[in-house]
Amino acid sequence: MDLSHRIDTAMSAAIARAQGQASPDGAVPGRLAAALHYAVTPGGARIRPTICLSVAKACGDDRPALSDSAAIALELIHCASLVHDDLPAFDNADFRRGKPTVHLAFSEPLAVLTGDSLIIAAFEELGGADDADAARALRLVRLLSRHTGMPHGICAGQGWESEAQVDLRAYHRSKTAALFVAATQMGALAAGQDPEPWEELGARIGEAFQVADDLRDALYDEQALGKPAGQDVANARPSAVEELGVQGAIKHLQDILSGAIASIPSCPGEGQLAQLVRLYAERMTPVAPARV
Amino acid sequence: MDLSHRIDTAMSAAIARAQGQASPDGAVPGRLAAALHYAVTPGGARIRPTICLSVAKACGDDRPALSDSAAIALELIHCASLVHDDLPAFDNADFRRGKPTVHLAFSEPLAVLTGDSLIIAAFEELGGADDADAARALRLVRLLSRHTGMPHGICAGQGWESEAQVDLRAYHRSKTAALFVAATQMGALAAGQDPEPWEELGARIGEAFQVADDLRDALYDEQALGKPAGQDVANARPSAVEELGVQGAIKHLQDILSGAIASIPSCPGEGQLAQLVRLYAERMTPVAPARV
Repeated sequence: MDLSHRIDTAMSAAIARAQGQASPDGAVPGRLAAALHYAVTPGGARIRPTICLSVAKACGDDRPALSDSAAIALELIHCASLVHDDLPAFDNADFRRGKPTVHLAFSEPLAVLTGDSLIIAAFEELGGADDADAARALRLVRLLSRHTGMPHGICAGQGWESEAQVDLRAYHRSKTAALFVAATQMGALAAGQDPEPWEELGARIGEAFQVADDLRDALYDEQALGKPAGQDVANARPSAVEELGVQGAIKHLQDILSGAIASIPSCPGEGQLAQLVRLYAERMTPVAPARV
Repeated sequence: MDLSHRIDTAMSAAIARAQGQASPDGAVPGRLAAALHYAVTPGGARIRPTICLSVAKACGDDRPALSDSAAIALELIHCASLVHDDLPAFDNADFRRGKPTVHLAFSEPLAVLTGDSLIIAAFEELGGADDADAARALRLVRLLSRHTGMPHGICAGQGWESEAQVDLRAYHRSKTAALFVAATQMGALAAGQDPEPWEELGARIGEAFQVADDLRDALYDEQALGKPAGQDVANARPSAVEELGVQGAIKHLQDILSGAIASIPSCPGEGQLAQLVRLYAERMTPVAPARV
């Protein structure tokens, strides 16, 4: 089964469970159930779970169901963060993935609850592991919460935006890189390997994504992005483009990705994994600047 | 060590960890860190963790650290739900526990992130269990997520308030009773016992709290409650007082609590547990109606 099929299948099952389709004995609030599905579709590139499963495969993937859970848990958290980040109190975004954001399509209360429910569903996904895999699954819970909450996960990253003095390194590391580090580390751990050597690969991919995102925000228009463009300047957010210029940021992106490939720990699937990062590198590097 | 001391100690440790006090190597967003502490203090009655630890003790409490984690996880989730429920999009509450709500004391973005971070901290608390207790801890993750998220946890309960047609039984069961069921079941499970026979006790205590809350909302003023009164009528929420009248609701509350005591499974600490429920019963039954 290819990775995207594994991800789609496991994601559909997780959402169906959260919607109560597996427990027909109790009534379920229908609008919140619908909002959960809305918030995770269309899937987009599913980059974090793809990285997670790729690392798991490179490490032998001896517990594929657990790897799938790790991948889906990451994606559920990522989708939750998008729903909350789009709220009027944060980015006040109208569009995401080319359709109205959850608070516009449903309501603000339902958007808050959708994010909350998706966070919880992520941990429920890991909690559903077989007893035989309990120790590994519990370590996955630990990794996911570390890279998601306070003091250094994506919540912390978003929290930095409420500070008068921002520690830029901590900000980028927690806001963007944390979930990529979680992706590589959880993939390794789900396959029974030590997650520590996988931190650097995740951190570098995360850094590359941040730079690529800054470039896209500066270069593309709203239609190409599927969400409002020019938000970094509009919200006075720090950006690699502002710091290095467009060509400088593109060069920086390529350097980071070379470093990412060099950092891949020795493992059976090392070559395939390097190829995946190269593929992302091509996709990430912006072409045909539309607004400069 | 008495229960409230165990709860305070474990809660302080959990919040210190979320604030980054245990990992001094990385910068932390200070306002969000402060908001986490603000949201869980003053502690109030800490009823859910007290019930959880009481049940664990009644069942032998052979893993006190795990029982403490279960209790604290519950309280973190409860505090998270209060912060999110108080948001302008929901109850738009100005006061909670006699001080300004988190979104007023800090900001709306920080209130959303505080809730998110507390939810994640709850699972991190369980994820920190020893490897030897991994299977039990993972089952605690499963119970906590089931009673917290969708389709039947407290998120679902809140979600019902966005429905045109409300299933009242499902609404109350998920909005209030779910965390009490989690409290009794997680207490039993943390002590190595089957959680299923403990469901009814939690459900009945939860039902009693809902009725007591309805009574307080109808009878007390803002000063006595530490939060706005008369919210059920103001928000057109279903209430036992509306349905049964004040005296009828008090009688109903006492019946539920008798049922709760009768439902306690046979265990070494059965008598003490019955006494605890009787104590709550006295505290819950409103006296001196201020506004009728």
